[in-house]
Amino acid sequence: MTETTTKTPGLRASLPEFRWAGVERRAYKDEASAPYKGVTRQTLASDPRLAGELRYFEVEPSGYTTLERHEHMHAVMILTGAGSVLVGDEVFAVKPNDLVNIASWTWHQFRAGPDGKLGFLCLVDAERDRPRLPTREDLDVLRAAPAIARFLDGAPS
Amino acid sequence: MTETTTKTPGLRASLPEFRWAGVERRAYKDEASAPYKGVTRQTLASDPRLAGELRYFEVEPSGYTTLERHEHMHAVMILTGAGSVLVGDEVFAVKPNDLVNIASWTWHQFRAGPDGKLGFLCLVDAERDRPRLPTREDLDVLRAAPAIARFLDGAPS
Repeated sequence: MTETTTKTPGLRASLPEFRWAGVERRAYKDEASAPYKGVTRQTLASDPRLAGELRYFEVEPSGYTTLERHEHMHAVMILTGAGSVLVGDEVFAVKPNDLVNIASWTWHQFRAGPDGKLGFLCLVDAERDRPRLPTREDLDVLRAAPAIARFLDGAPS
Repeated sequence: MTETTTKTPGLRASLPEFRWAGVERRAYKDEASAPYKGVTRQTLASDPRLAGELRYFEVEPSGYTTLERHEHMHAVMILTGAGSVLVGDEVFAVKPNDLVNIASWTWHQFRAGPDGKLGFLCLVDAERDRPRLPTREDLDVLRAAPAIARFLDGAPS
């Protein structure tokens, strides 16, 4: 995916507010076709000789990532803040250092609470398929569970 | 490498002292052939469908990981504490959230300072070569640099 032509230095220092020296903060997604709110992305590790990529995502208060699923997995660690996460048919409140495992083809979404941002690390394969968005029927199935309907409506967890 | 027969749950909660629900704390290395001091390992993400693995290593005060190099890369984020890191011909003092990039065939070692532990996340490829230890000649070359000699002798950074 992302290949840099400059060599990654041995140390990239942590800066205030979850920034890093030499790491660009980008839009969450390159395309604007998928719904999300208030999310940025920083790529912390990506190299042609590394099979995985490590990214840091930050969701602003009351923001959310795209509700989606795909064949590739996510291995997530919450780094800062609080919020809630949909994984399949479960909704979890999350706190720093919690691990979230998103298996293949599992619907998932990250939401920050109203009072603070949510920041998390996400490990993925560098080679991966594109995310799929839910159909109206998928959404009906998800919303049949009251806890998931409340989550998708942004109700405090 | 490590394959678990049980399905990873969606959430594995963070516990005090950098432990996680359902994650075993293990010896740093399976074999005792390589020199190190006071290091434990927890595997936070490892799955047959994931090309990378995410591990958490913790080095006790004045402890150190094995001085080694290998073809595979490491992408590291410091999670807690302080210490110093040798990467090739450079020694860095590190603090939480700093990123350390260890390119192929680069000599590297992590050392905790005398006053507290050093904990860090490490991303590697699941399929990887075995580390190589330095020969006496390699050590002579490394020690020719005074800063590296001081680091290897455990002098405070």
